[in-house]
Amino acid sequence: MTIRKTPKGASRRAFLTSAAAATLGAGAARAAGDPLITEIQPWAQGFGDGVDATPYGLPIEYESDVVRRNVEWLTADTISSINFTPIHALDGTITPQGCAFERHHSGAIDMRKQDYRLMLHGMVEKELVFTYEDLERFPRESHVYFCECAANSGMEWAGAQLNGAQFTHGMIHNMEYVGIPLRTLLAEVGVKPEGKWLYVEGHDASSNGRSIPMEKALDDVLLAFKANGEALRKEHGYPVRLVVPGWEGNMWIKWIRRIEVMAGPVESREETSKYTDTLADGTSRKWTWVMDAKSVITSPSPQSPIPHGPGPMVITGLAWSGRGAITRVDVTTDGGKNWTEARLASEGKAKALTRFYLDLEWDGAEMLLQSRAHDQTGYVQPTKDQLREVRGLNSIYHNNGIQTWWVKADGRAENVEIS
Amino acid sequence: MTIRKTPKGASRRAFLTSAAAATLGAGAARAAGDPLITEIQPWAQGFGDGVDATPYGLPIEYESDVVRRNVEWLTADTISSINFTPIHALDGTITPQGCAFERHHSGAIDMRKQDYRLMLHGMVEKELVFTYEDLERFPRESHVYFCECAANSGMEWAGAQLNGAQFTHGMIHNMEYVGIPLRTLLAEVGVKPEGKWLYVEGHDASSNGRSIPMEKALDDVLLAFKANGEALRKEHGYPVRLVVPGWEGNMWIKWIRRIEVMAGPVESREETSKYTDTLADGTSRKWTWVMDAKSVITSPSPQSPIPHGPGPMVITGLAWSGRGAITRVDVTTDGGKNWTEARLASEGKAKALTRFYLDLEWDGAEMLLQSRAHDQTGYVQPTKDQLREVRGLNSIYHNNGIQTWWVKADGRAENVEIS
Repeated sequence: MTIRKTPKGASRRAFLTSAAAATLGAGAARAAGDPLITEIQPWAQGFGDGVDATPYGLPIEYESDVVRRNVEWLTADTISSINFTPIHALDGTITPQGCAFERHHSGAIDMRKQDYRLMLHGMVEKELVFTYEDLERFPRESHVYFCECAANSGMEWAGAQLNGAQFTHGMIHNMEYVGIPLRTLLAEVGVKPEGKWLYVEGHDASSNGRSIPMEKALDDVLLAFKANGEALRKEHGYPVRLVVPGWEGNMWIKWIRRIEVMAGPVESREETSKYTDTLADGTSRKWTWVMDAKSVITSPSPQSPIPHGPGPMVITGLAWSGRGAITRVDVTTDGGKNWTEARLASEGKAKALTRFYLDLEWDGAEMLLQSRAHDQTGYVQPTKDQLREVRGLNSIYHNNGIQTWWVKADGRAENVEIS
Repeated sequence: MTIRKTPKGASRRAFLTSAAAATLGAGAARAAGDPLITEIQPWAQGFGDGVDATPYGLPIEYESDVVRRNVEWLTADTISSINFTPIHALDGTITPQGCAFERHHSGAIDMRKQDYRLMLHGMVEKELVFTYEDLERFPRESHVYFCECAANSGMEWAGAQLNGAQFTHGMIHNMEYVGIPLRTLLAEVGVKPEGKWLYVEGHDASSNGRSIPMEKALDDVLLAFKANGEALRKEHGYPVRLVVPGWEGNMWIKWIRRIEVMAGPVESREETSKYTDTLADGTSRKWTWVMDAKSVITSPSPQSPIPHGPGPMVITGLAWSGRGAITRVDVTTDGGKNWTEARLASEGKAKALTRFYLDLEWDGAEMLLQSRAHDQTGYVQPTKDQLREVRGLNSIYHNNGIQTWWVKADGRAENVEIS
């Protein structure tokens, strides 16, 4: 049997040859009759690992660069800091817990289920304390939601700054949660008519208190204890965290300790000195809870260059909206002169990540890559300049402007802005 | 009604007692004005872990029992053996890769993406060899599918045997895959008119060759390189595995090496001496590829006893069908005299796990728990006795009979059969 080199010509077939050029070893071997496929290799000559090797497994050693990373200069210490999901290296929509970003205000605490307590008090008929085991006795729901830090892309307000999708857009993850609707526990304690807001705090030293209007609490907020099938990870709030679909991650209180029913909001440190949007005139907008429609091309990107020459390639990325489902994503390769509708991997789900693909025949020329998300409310992701017109340059949070990657002829990409 | 108990020797797990003890503690503490909520605890008095603690994280230490387990006596060695997903401890539908079951025929091999090759040959216009990088250039799809070993529940043919859902039904996992439709590569090489079957082999020593009819290959088979967002794990076929939706896991060739287009099936060892169903008369059925509709209650179950007394509780489990979507799941607490329709966590997806819940007010009496799945074809999951009438007692594979858990008044559960 002979393995023939792919003939030039037909578009799809042509690329194997060009790929060969880009990956010399493989290409040369393939042209000559590639020993990696024609000869018996070491891994086919003996036994591999048995089923007792890893009772709980980790990624293979060759994927050791697909990890959470932080940005040293971003915050003073790593305790009250944040790290970033390696979205440039992921595909699909689910984020594995192991590399899903973390944000702590006083670090990830270590708490046993047996020691867990949740208090519901304030303007209620009957104040109650629940153990973990108590919570497991209430009817559960399961939903996939994205969790995005309000500061995601925050470093980009002043201009293109961080060179990688992991750093510009990696304060996000997307998991399948199992938990109890908060409305169920509120019914259990009986909210008094004057109770219009909740104040929620965590068990950690920071407590990270936030105010949540009753309408949202009664809508889709969950007390979650499972993510992607298993118990929450320590760094994501084990054993119980709040899930506040579509709203900024800071409100998704981890290690949730108490929920106080109140007549009004507390205006705590976490919702006044932080998590407000300072405008051009120096005043600040508060209660900007919802994460508006946003998207980013994850590959190619600075950490995920094009490894081959001209020919067929896949452009892929993520889109999401805190107001509902993504209905459409447009992609441009020329900085916005022409837009093409991307292919959604599956129909957009409300408040969850949507994966998009654009299958492109690359001519090898430079590209200015951008993606633009549309959600079910008709909202269209704005440019960064459109955002600045409204918000000025003093904001940190809620930057959902269109991202630009400048892809060079050699396949490398760079974070830039165009105007 | 007679209850056929687990044979002596398969004893209940030791941790049941400790679970019961923990319950008492929590209950007592709550009754008395609980210092765990009224007093400041150690975890609120200092810093927790910073964001550099785990670039790639693992479950918290307290979840160390939620791991893959094997059954020593099941096979001669752990290299050609299988382990089981801890489904009794999971919720939702996604299976984390870290505890998703493994089955190897010569062990999990260690292979770099750079060394990966896939050959398509046989009755094709142009035989081609693809590198990993080549594959990344083809249009991708993303789908959630279950993968069930044909032998899942196989040890139960002769009667209730293994005392835990992990062991009776844990040869299954459910992941979001990203890959290339096999039909795309078949179009690339050009299948000749006489090519009606595929023979597929892996890079491992066993090669685990299987024959696949062309209709299935052109339908929904994927060459997958991502699962739940990240690269496949080593034990699940890194860097590329075949995904054969709804069909027995043995056909989901890991580390896939070659695909030969042929006029007929090979009738290899893996599809003659194994993965056929021996009937009562000693003859064997072959080509029983599809995994029929099946379900199991994951909690309560022998490894997940009811940790509390009478009152509200959640019964939950999983249902799936290789023929399409799950449309309904019934649950009985009295061994089948009365059935109640369970609540599906979300609408059933074709060839993917569906989570069901039954919210019950438990009177504290013994229960004979069963679940019964219905799929979109109208098929209803049979009883084990109904299966045996057709298949006899010589089968190993494709046991999708209804599982019974005998739940005692103390909340402990046991694997039994009733008739």
